[in-house]
Amino acid sequence: MDRIKMILDCDTGHDDAIALLLAAAHPKIDLLGITVVAGNQVLDRTLENTLNVCQHMEIDVPVYAGCGCPLVRDQVAAEDIHGKSGLDGPVFPERVREAEKEHAVHYLIRTLLASDGDITLVPTAPLTNIAMAMRLEPAIVPKIRQISLMGGAVGLGNITPAAEFNIFADPEAAHIVFTSGVPIVMMGLDLTNQVLADMEVIERMEAIGNRAGKLFGDIMRFTFNTQKLNGLSAGPVHDVTAVAYLVAPELFTTRSMHVEIDLTHGPCYGRTVCDANCRTGRKANVMAGSGVDLSGFWNLVEETLRRYR
Amino acid sequence: MDRIKMILDCDTGHDDAIALLLAAAHPKIDLLGITVVAGNQVLDRTLENTLNVCQHMEIDVPVYAGCGCPLVRDQVAAEDIHGKSGLDGPVFPERVREAEKEHAVHYLIRTLLASDGDITLVPTAPLTNIAMAMRLEPAIVPKIRQISLMGGAVGLGNITPAAEFNIFADPEAAHIVFTSGVPIVMMGLDLTNQVLADMEVIERMEAIGNRAGKLFGDIMRFTFNTQKLNGLSAGPVHDVTAVAYLVAPELFTTRSMHVEIDLTHGPCYGRTVCDANCRTGRKANVMAGSGVDLSGFWNLVEETLRRYR
Amino acid sequence: MDRIKMILDCDTGHDDAIALLLAAAHPKIDLLGITVVAGNQVLDRTLENTLNVCQHMEIDVPVYAGCGCPLVRDQVAAEDIHGKSGLDGPVFPERVREAEKEHAVHYLIRTLLASDGDITLVPTAPLTNIAMAMRLEPAIVPKIRQISLMGGAVGLGNITPAAEFNIFADPEAAHIVFTSGVPIVMMGLDLTNQVLADMEVIERMEAIGNRAGKLFGDIMRFTFNTQKLNGLSAGPVHDVTAVAYLVAPELFTTRSMHVEIDLTHGPCYGRTVCDANCRTGRKANVMAGSGVDLSGFWNLVEETLRRYR
Amino acid sequence: MDRIKMILDCDTGHDDAIALLLAAAHPKIDLLGITVVAGNQVLDRTLENTLNVCQHMEIDVPVYAGCGCPLVRDQVAAEDIHGKSGLDGPVFPERVREAEKEHAVHYLIRTLLASDGDITLVPTAPLTNIAMAMRLEPAIVPKIRQISLMGGAVGLGNITPAAEFNIFADPEAAHIVFTSGVPIVMMGLDLTNQVLADMEVIERMEAIGNRAGKLFGDIMRFTFNTQKLNGLSAGPVHDVTAVAYLVAPELFTTRSMHVEIDLTHGPCYGRTVCDANCRTGRKANVMAGSGVDLSGFWNLVEETLRRYR
Repeated sequence: MDRIKMILDCDTGHDDAIALLLAAAHPKIDLLGITVVAGNQVLDRTLENTLNVCQHMEIDVPVYAGCGCPLVRDQVAAEDIHGKSGLDGPVFPERVREAEKEHAVHYLIRTLLASDGDITLVPTAPLTNIAMAMRLEPAIVPKIRQISLMGGAVGLGNITPAAEFNIFADPEAAHIVFTSGVPIVMMGLDLTNQVLADMEVIERMEAIGNRAGKLFGDIMRFTFNTQKLNGLSAGPVHDVTAVAYLVAPELFTTRSMHVEIDLTHGPCYGRTVCDANCRTGRKANVMAGSGVDLSGFWNLVEETLRRYR
Repeated sequence: MDRIKMILDCDTGHDDAIALLLAAAHPKIDLLGITVVAGNQVLDRTLENTLNVCQHMEIDVPVYAGCGCPLVRDQVAAEDIHGKSGLDGPVFPERVREAEKEHAVHYLIRTLLASDGDITLVPTAPLTNIAMAMRLEPAIVPKIRQISLMGGAVGLGNITPAAEFNIFADPEAAHIVFTSGVPIVMMGLDLTNQVLADMEVIERMEAIGNRAGKLFGDIMRFTFNTQKLNGLSAGPVHDVTAVAYLVAPELFTTRSMHVEIDLTHGPCYGRTVCDANCRTGRKANVMAGSGVDLSGFWNLVEETLRRYR
Repeated sequence: MDRIKMILDCDTGHDDAIALLLAAAHPKIDLLGITVVAGNQVLDRTLENTLNVCQHMEIDVPVYAGCGCPLVRDQVAAEDIHGKSGLDGPVFPERVREAEKEHAVHYLIRTLLASDGDITLVPTAPLTNIAMAMRLEPAIVPKIRQISLMGGAVGLGNITPAAEFNIFADPEAAHIVFTSGVPIVMMGLDLTNQVLADMEVIERMEAIGNRAGKLFGDIMRFTFNTQKLNGLSAGPVHDVTAVAYLVAPELFTTRSMHVEIDLTHGPCYGRTVCDANCRTGRKANVMAGSGVDLSGFWNLVEETLRRYR
Repeated sequence: MDRIKMILDCDTGHDDAIALLLAAAHPKIDLLGITVVAGNQVLDRTLENTLNVCQHMEIDVPVYAGCGCPLVRDQVAAEDIHGKSGLDGPVFPERVREAEKEHAVHYLIRTLLASDGDITLVPTAPLTNIAMAMRLEPAIVPKIRQISLMGGAVGLGNITPAAEFNIFADPEAAHIVFTSGVPIVMMGLDLTNQVLADMEVIERMEAIGNRAGKLFGDIMRFTFNTQKLNGLSAGPVHDVTAVAYLVAPELFTTRSMHVEIDLTHGPCYGRTVCDANCRTGRKANVMAGSGVDLSGFWNLVEETLRRYR
């Protein structure tokens, strides 16, 4: 089987970092590039974090800096979850690794236009980069094979009662992506809040004994603590599910539905309005993750982390 | 123990009719009056249905016609659920029973002002009557002991992806009630969709052998069929829960939270935006029903229906 | 000619007071009643001010207290324009005059239902009372001959860049009135800001030498000063135009147009969106005042004030 | 005096074409480039029209195609004003002139970054290109000396009762530009509807006897007819004012004010909410054209057109 060509669009971030570990080492994935965007933190920090992870883990994939602020709305940050650096917890050696000179939006356009329509985008961040690329060069839209993203929620949000952070951080960008016609797999909070790295999982990954296992531990021990403050029993690894779905869709159950982004400036701004019960009669544009085989999922993560030195 | 003084505010309606059966016959409830509002159907029909049930079941409680259209928005109807009459299914003898002359809003104001603050309102319909009464005479607000209502949803809606019918049918009225400061118990879809009258329940109530059991059967057999079209395995008895809570709160689990009504005219218009995870820091104004002891609930219904001839 | 039956709905207020002087004394007007609403100030004060003017000027017309807060939105006040009392400037003797016991909304409903459809409403305040009456008893709508109101603007607002105070103070009430089908004459800021009581006018009215002329002077000298702070060269007598139109429509030029109230919660909340150039194709529901014969207008005011002792 | 370095951003368009004639030939202007965007018509046609005018008039300035659809909203077109081609009226010879290969957004970014901060942008179209450039490369913002644009209205709109076409066609782009901090001169409908090319003006320009005068005539005779349908006595040359202001600001009176774009999806979507009377206390971000010396303006146009062969 051909490997799945994939571009990771992230705002590293704790769970983004684990997603990156998975994407870079899984044998079924051909990680073409990593695009970075502001989100969990300002762009300088999400870029720094991404480069640090790549250098530390010897991930030899080009990294591109993208948009530093949302399309239309004012910027929101998630400092309470990810700490001041945006990736508090692990300590990295001095960074020598640099980002590419090309803007992430240009990289996306150039790469997609040159492709055979076989590239999957995996955004684990606000959708600014991808929306900008779609608007700047609409010809890329039919070239995108699929978007498997972490974001949104059928049920309740996390940053507001109604909205999930990645979508809330740039609702207008999400609107562009969700109305683009590209097939979308949405790993929302309903799914991702089921995937918690509890102490048993953390110790299991650390027991691998390599650098990847240690990084997993450093990251998720930090998240474990901050997320418990949010009423979860352990730290979710949200972003990892969007990568895992690509290589092992059989681990997930999904539901097909129409999803609209609420662009009003009321209490549901940035909500993914999910027509899970077919109230509107609109055609489904999203496959929303609803369930996951947790045992299979953690096996997948462990096996992939073992591939690192 | 003193009986609970209660006014039922309804738009009868299938489940409203069962709620009325419960409210009128339960020994712990002193049903002072019934106010009717447009909702499931136009006012003429919801009034007709209410009077028919009262006459047929010999419920000797005054009935007051209220508001025929929502406060601000255009009227929506729910003909697909409740049929052309708003209570398709049972057949009633010719009606002689009449409504009182007084407007429901005036009845509410007069009765509440004259009370000792010991009256509970149970709205199972759009909140137009109650909101109008609150605005016309704000002095009633501190006189209302509690509002136990059927409406809203923490999760998905039923009339739109985001909104439940009773709230959607008059969001501005709901806003007035939810911001009034009166303690609110909200039996939303999350709770009520758990309370399904399946064939076993229907046959059990019919087996009582009296007029109430037969009416339950006539009503819920109709609902059984229409609701299955909506993907439920049987017909929910939404409105009944708001009455049952009053007499047997121990059957229910509830969660305290802040609920805001979305008044924007976007895709979440009429949504009860539930801050179930304390995202906003706002003080709780609602106890939202989340779980129910189904066995206890149906026992309560059966025991009450048995009290009819 | 029969006199014009009229009910004044006001939140007295400086210009409301002058409007009241005109309505109570003009020979062509049969002022049936005065309903009061919160607006320029809280209800207690607008009622107090109305009763003070009536007592002081020996206006023997029943006064009814109405709604103390807007239909849906939170209350806004206009203390900067009208001062702490809502009618700073004139000093009144101790008040003995009392309001009627009946609520203004009930008075409106009762009077309109009993009428031959020949009553004109003149609201110079937020439209809460009238909207509440329309919703509580829709049968009054076809009974209203006409509404001649002060409010709105084709151009810029005064309380916000987009909205005029009376409409902004209760946009949902205005929506109910403007969509009711009743013929509406709208004296908006475009018209009323042309009708300024400068020092020449003030001195002319004072020169009448009676109590009415003195009250005009006391009121408009106060307004003269506050309004100059708003960049006008003198104090406008907004509300008076809505009364004057009834008895002397020939003094005014009007334009027929569709007017919609902006109910979004954005920067144009409460704006009267005026389709003066027929962009929407919607049928006109408003005659908007655009010009006035100032000489004729002030003559009308003077002649009417002269009728007082 | 140094010439004013300028980039014209247009959706040619009748009045855009005249603006282009002025910008390309006025001795005080150094027209660096022309960027084209969808607006009055789809991008293919606005580009075609721009190239046709440049070829026909021998305007040797590079032309760049930009964005083909608005940032967030669905596309609106203005076929009723500009005809099927977007520039009905004049007939052009076969086109050989081609657009540059570079995307307009990239051209804007590259040129502004390389500049000394001395370039003025003159958008006479939806602000999509400029907003996209600002978001893709925020470093251009402090490099823009000034934006002199045609769009918006202090008073009424033209495409809706509240909104002017250029802003309505991409309100989110306008929001980005109006909140960017770049000094903005806004030639809105209040100003541009004063600048009508009546038959006297048309014949005067035709009497110049050169190709530019004839093109002016061909264009404005068409506009003359379509605009009379809109209730104007002749055809306005909206876009020309934004260019004329640059070379002869003394011909215009302007007012400094804060302008916010209404992004709600209600009846004022796309309105330039102009705080002309300082209601909000917000700092002015716009100089809005309010008056013009018409005699001086038409002299300027004639003198410039005379410079063509």
